[in-house]
Amino acid sequence: MSAPFRVGIAGLGTVGCGVVKILQKNAKLIEQRAGRRVEIVCVSAKSKKKKRDVDVSKYEWIDDPLQMAARKDIDCIVEVMGGSEGAALHLVKKALGAGKHIVTANKALLAHHGAALAELADKNAVSLSFEAAVAGGVPAIKALREGAMANHIHGVYGILNGTCNYILTQMRESGRGFKDVLKEAQSKGYAEADPEFDIEGVDAGHKICLLAAIAFGIKPDFKNLKTTGISHLDLVDIKFAQELGYKIKLLGIARDYKGKILQTVEPCLVPRKAPIASVEGVFNAVFIEGDFIGKCLLTGRGAGEGPTASAVVADIIDLARGIRVPAFGVDAAKLKKGNFIDAKTIQTSFYLRLNVLDKPGVIADVSAILRDYNISIEAMLQHGHDPGAPVHVVIKTHKVQRGDMEKATALIGKLKSCKEKPCLIRIADEL
Amino acid sequence: MSAPFRVGIAGLGTVGCGVVKILQKNAKLIEQRAGRRVEIVCVSAKSKKKKRDVDVSKYEWIDDPLQMAARKDIDCIVEVMGGSEGAALHLVKKALGAGKHIVTANKALLAHHGAALAELADKNAVSLSFEAAVAGGVPAIKALREGAMANHIHGVYGILNGTCNYILTQMRESGRGFKDVLKEAQSKGYAEADPEFDIEGVDAGHKICLLAAIAFGIKPDFKNLKTTGISHLDLVDIKFAQELGYKIKLLGIARDYKGKILQTVEPCLVPRKAPIASVEGVFNAVFIEGDFIGKCLLTGRGAGEGPTASAVVADIIDLARGIRVPAFGVDAAKLKKGNFIDAKTIQTSFYLRLNVLDKPGVIADVSAILRDYNISIEAMLQHGHDPGAPVHVVIKTHKVQRGDMEKATALIGKLKSCKEKPCLIRIADEL
Repeated sequence: MSAPFRVGIAGLGTVGCGVVKILQKNAKLIEQRAGRRVEIVCVSAKSKKKKRDVDVSKYEWIDDPLQMAARKDIDCIVEVMGGSEGAALHLVKKALGAGKHIVTANKALLAHHGAALAELADKNAVSLSFEAAVAGGVPAIKALREGAMANHIHGVYGILNGTCNYILTQMRESGRGFKDVLKEAQSKGYAEADPEFDIEGVDAGHKICLLAAIAFGIKPDFKNLKTTGISHLDLVDIKFAQELGYKIKLLGIARDYKGKILQTVEPCLVPRKAPIASVEGVFNAVFIEGDFIGKCLLTGRGAGEGPTASAVVADIIDLARGIRVPAFGVDAAKLKKGNFIDAKTIQTSFYLRLNVLDKPGVIADVSAILRDYNISIEAMLQHGHDPGAPVHVVIKTHKVQRGDMEKATALIGKLKSCKEKPCLIRIADEL
Repeated sequence: MSAPFRVGIAGLGTVGCGVVKILQKNAKLIEQRAGRRVEIVCVSAKSKKKKRDVDVSKYEWIDDPLQMAARKDIDCIVEVMGGSEGAALHLVKKALGAGKHIVTANKALLAHHGAALAELADKNAVSLSFEAAVAGGVPAIKALREGAMANHIHGVYGILNGTCNYILTQMRESGRGFKDVLKEAQSKGYAEADPEFDIEGVDAGHKICLLAAIAFGIKPDFKNLKTTGISHLDLVDIKFAQELGYKIKLLGIARDYKGKILQTVEPCLVPRKAPIASVEGVFNAVFIEGDFIGKCLLTGRGAGEGPTASAVVADIIDLARGIRVPAFGVDAAKLKKGNFIDAKTIQTSFYLRLNVLDKPGVIADVSAILRDYNISIEAMLQHGHDPGAPVHVVIKTHKVQRGDMEKATALIGKLKSCKEKPCLIRIADEL
């Protein structure tokens, strides 16, 4: 039997404690599969006193996680402290530099510093593993970086934030508004007290950057990503979408347009019968589309202690087995700077919801603006009829150039009869 | 740059030609990802003259694939000839013995000889890779054997045969009978001229044996598998299922019952709203259920040139990268003989369709038999009313012991008023 694989765990929050639990409960199984024992050498967290539902007293306690990086008796450090800068960044840099493998769930760190850290890992012949950073327990990184690697990847996209998917599902199913459902999600622990990272699409953005990097061999580039969240969506949008045969999902999308890359996070209308539409609640989904594999979909629990820790331990087992794959699928030195396409040039169809006065001439004004921008209308819906009062009107367009649609929408928003900022949502019929 | 990874391809049917196509078309991408060039050294197939839509003239032609095993200039042999015995078995044995990696799509070979071959691979420190053997392009083997390895696996199950799923989907959607749809599937190339392996569940059986082996650390054991196919299903069953809120899917199921294992292939009624129900046509789906990961679902194209060859090349890239994982997730010497549970002792609910004379007393007779076996009825459906003539009656039971249900069904089949062999189908509400 080989020597044990020795692990230090930095961070004992939900995920860190989950990792300890798995390594304790499934120790024998994991030893068989890894071909050697996986041993926790030491742990570190902000507070030693905090009550935890797992016994960490048998492991050496380290106050400053940075000390782990220098230790000779550790093969791998599990970084589950979080945060894109500060302690996590220092630890990961120092550990990789000292020849220790890193297993992390920290998407923010990697979206911002992934390329430099991957290069550091390569230089020191160690691994920077992050299966847990995207879609929790779903082995999306492995499926893309190893399973689909024979393919030229056309696109990778999906539902990458369980909080948003939960909120959108609840709004549709219960007919309650955004704020109401958000509060409930917070009370259930599905949303953070400060929910901005989730509901504004930042978290999903971190994840799609990592997937784009692997899919297209580029450096993760969070700065070249536009994120639109879900906080501006109204219940009425969810209902109109339904009436048109769609559901609204917050999607992270990375796609290759003849060598130029589009990466975005935004709510989209997806056909109700599309497989992605059936992914509800806190579940995540990742689609991989390649030239030979066709479309492949992975779904499962994208967050929570068990699934996320399961992904962390999968990475640990890989390393204990002696498996090392470059962080983003190719040598970090070969990662290119992404050549991004201007999103405004993309052709897609749109859902446009207006709140306009119900009076003659309004639709004519709106239609004239759309005509001027070459936008053709596929369907128009109005609920109720209330002369002189504001009513919701929804327009579904054919495929149009995004830039044109945005300009037209801005002009429509300035019409005197338009009583609210128009709500413009992409329709993703191709999913 | 490292030395090239040298491959010999044995078999130039659909999959073999697909592999050549990918290695030609995506050569540059694959070289970047694998960290070295992947080079086809030689190819072999039954007929050199056969027209193929890919150019193999630049590779050395070998008449007898067995010769590949002895060559010093090959690192890996791709076995895509098929068949559980004969040439494929000889080649794989000889090649592993000679220290060559094997990449294969041959589920039959592995379901019958997987344990012995894996041991041979371990002994020679080479890999026996078979991502392409299960669910085509879907990285199901990798997801289970690596992605989910932190977990005690409770179950793995899914739609493993595209031909059957296509036929069942078409029957439901077009309202045509089994034979009619089978013919169409054959003309479209979705079913073989001799469809028995597919429609009797043998092919799905080979695949579920391989998944069970990985999930539970047991030797693949096709002999301890009961397969029921779909050829006995009538259109009326599909319609009744729909009326009850279900779809019929042919499922391969491997599940852990407190240390004892159940592995089966059989048609099941799955709730229409369950994710697996939305997997239609030639698509495959694999569910993995573990103690920490929860449920994880993978879907995609389970057959065809592109997806299957994509999986073969993924294995090749892994090997070129220097990744070797034991065939079934643990050292072959540690694979146990499976301890299988008697399927008759399993509790599940059932769909029972009878063709009985429409006359007083018949239902009383049926009910009495069910009562005698402690089987309680949740719902009963009858279409039409035709006194004295045979009519279809469908009974949905609560959870009962399978053995009791089978005995009761046999007795009901012997009733004079029962005009056709009763059709008994498992209901898989838990999916």
